Amino acid sequence: MTVTVPAGFAASGVHCGIRRSRPDLAVVRSLACATGAAMFTANRAAAAPVKVSREHLELAEPQAVVINSGTANAGTGVRGELAARATAAEAGRLLGLAAEEVLVLSTGVIGEPLPLDKVLPGLEKAVGALSPDGGPAAAEAILTTDTRTKQAVAEGPGFTVAGMAKGSGMIHPNLATMLAVVTTDYPLEPAAAWEFLRPAVGESFNSISVDGECSTNDAVVLLANGASGAARDDDTFAAALAEVCRELARQIVEDGEGATVVAEIAVTGAASEPEARAIARRIATSPLVKTALFGRDANWGRVLAAAGSAPYNGGYAHLDPDRVSLRYNGAPVLVRGTPQGLEPELDGPTCRIDLDLGLGDAQASYLTSDLSYDYVRINADYRT
Amino acid sequence: MTVTVPAGFAASGVHCGIRRSRPDLAVVRSLACATGAAMFTANRAAAAPVKVSREHLELAEPQAVVINSGTANAGTGVRGELAARATAAEAGRLLGLAAEEVLVLSTGVIGEPLPLDKVLPGLEKAVGALSPDGGPAAAEAILTTDTRTKQAVAEGPGFTVAGMAKGSGMIHPNLATMLAVVTTDYPLEPAAAWEFLRPAVGESFNSISVDGECSTNDAVVLLANGASGAARDDDTFAAALAEVCRELARQIVEDGEGATVVAEIAVTGAASEPEARAIARRIATSPLVKTALFGRDANWGRVLAAAGSAPYNGGYAHLDPDRVSLRYNGAPVLVRGTPQGLEPELDGPTCRIDLDLGLGDAQASYLTSDLSYDYVRINADYRT
Repeated sequence: MTVTVPAGFAASGVHCGIRRSRPDLAVVRSLACATGAAMFTANRAAAAPVKVSREHLELAEPQAVVINSGTANAGTGVRGELAARATAAEAGRLLGLAAEEVLVLSTGVIGEPLPLDKVLPGLEKAVGALSPDGGPAAAEAILTTDTRTKQAVAEGPGFTVAGMAKGSGMIHPNLATMLAVVTTDYPLEPAAAWEFLRPAVGESFNSISVDGECSTNDAVVLLANGASGAARDDDTFAAALAEVCRELARQIVEDGEGATVVAEIAVTGAASEPEARAIARRIATSPLVKTALFGRDANWGRVLAAAGSAPYNGGYAHLDPDRVSLRYNGAPVLVRGTPQGLEPELDGPTCRIDLDLGLGDAQASYLTSDLSYDYVRINADYRT
Repeated sequence: MTVTVPAGFAASGVHCGIRRSRPDLAVVRSLACATGAAMFTANRAAAAPVKVSREHLELAEPQAVVINSGTANAGTGVRGELAARATAAEAGRLLGLAAEEVLVLSTGVIGEPLPLDKVLPGLEKAVGALSPDGGPAAAEAILTTDTRTKQAVAEGPGFTVAGMAKGSGMIHPNLATMLAVVTTDYPLEPAAAWEFLRPAVGESFNSISVDGECSTNDAVVLLANGASGAARDDDTFAAALAEVCRELARQIVEDGEGATVVAEIAVTGAASEPEARAIARRIATSPLVKTALFGRDANWGRVLAAAGSAPYNGGYAHLDPDRVSLRYNGAPVLVRGTPQGLEPELDGPTCRIDLDLGLGDAQASYLTSDLSYDYVRINADYRT
């Protein structure tokens, strides 16, 4: 039951008509006074709702989130911004909140305006449908090309952390079209939400890639209302939050557009942590690595080539081909620069690629999916 | 007749057995004493032949180039390096040149060693076949997944510049698996070849992308032997060289793996030239833009999203969504941040996307191809 599992939250998901026949409008609200934080896309062409939500976060603690699917309300100019503000204002009116206490998120096609004639009546329906059992309906209403809902729950001593997410394309670090809402009844101090959210996002949503794209709309929201009355245990809370974020991130990659395999790219022995990340990211986004994964063909030279061209500091991250070792599902194909003549088996829905650079102690890992015919089909046909 | 059109060059292409039934070994040599230059991949996992050729260029003026297809001789450790050295030494012996006067280039699968038992006898055959009519045979022998040869010729007053290239996948700036050999009978000063080659490559081979990959083996070689006896006219020579490089680069994109459309991404109004390039490159490598091109669906928001997330200086290049204008084949879909409600027609084999950032005077452009089912098919099956 996802975001409504923690005490003191209600949610709903309804159909307001942006999309022809699928639910397209979700509301999540805290019933007790909440504190919260949100992280947004770094894209310079951030969507109108991102701009408006950023402003709202500076003015007030978030108490509710409104999410529509079907249109991203991005690239829509002044009209789009007014529509995002009107959405937050109307939701606030219906919920008895200030407009600034409402965050608005959108996902869908870029460049199409938000149809207020559908969203405003839809809000009345969605607010009327708010329920402590509404988590699954909300999780359904935020999907676009996703094939299934993404939900996760972690329990701590006396409290719960839960989350829902959407995203299967445009998935890449810096939150590329993925939206996630994480709720908890843990008693966070006001303003403390940021310090917990940032590291949790770094090692989850910012360490996955489906297609290397960075969306205009990505957002992760954390709402904490303390309704559990649990004692403070910040380490345990941080672990539960990280678990929910990692689990949602994994589900996003598993449901990556056209994905037939989930690969974990583990880079060790790098000269520095940023270089380890740059190399893991480069491999995780390489079309040649990803098509080879789809073909269940190790073709490991592509991993080496990608690793050798990882953008870092205006050049490429450090790599010495004579020190590199590479394993597929544990099978060594390259040991300190020397090919082993092995052809690893790559059956099954998961694959682990271990790249040891042999240069230092730094490491990083990424989850990625393969690049299949279906990815092309889905994205060549997205709007039709 | 490509690289043998300029006076004083001979070439050949033969089958030596690395590949089952296609020609796989090419030799180009200057018959008069030549000066030359070469630019190689920036990939840190550069192949053995790149390492060896770089060394040779520091020791001597290049007089001949040996190119094999079928294996990249990359990721092959010490054994690969010895094989590259043996190839240059044997070619030098057969051609009456020092080993250091021979450049060696390889293209094909990474991680497989160069089979000297085939290459050394093959060299004897290839040197025996050298002919002033051998350009097309050489252009054929260097291909891998290419569907056709890439050849270009430009005439100056009394001299000729000609080139051949290969490459259709792993194509990206910094020379990703593409090889090109450009010959000219123009009388270049020794050591001057670099200053002509660098800018010509920058605006041609380094401004195209098929899949954003950077190969371990890319190289562009320029050999100039002065055999035309033409008068020096450096500006005209530079223009002819640029024309040949641009033409070869265009042919590479047209023959991009699975390409059904060639798109020119022209970015203007950028805050700086590096940012213009970063944005053009980001759009040109975006899987979502490229699948939309395949679907002949403008879905222009994807261009905006890509432009807003162009890596630059540790962050993203400057872009203000309220100032951006975007045209497809001349049709304005977005004018200073406001969508125009237009749905541009995208039929035909070419597409031009003009993005005006409205920030400054800097500009850059890129050629790219679309991402189709065939790209996935070719790369999922490459080795089978």
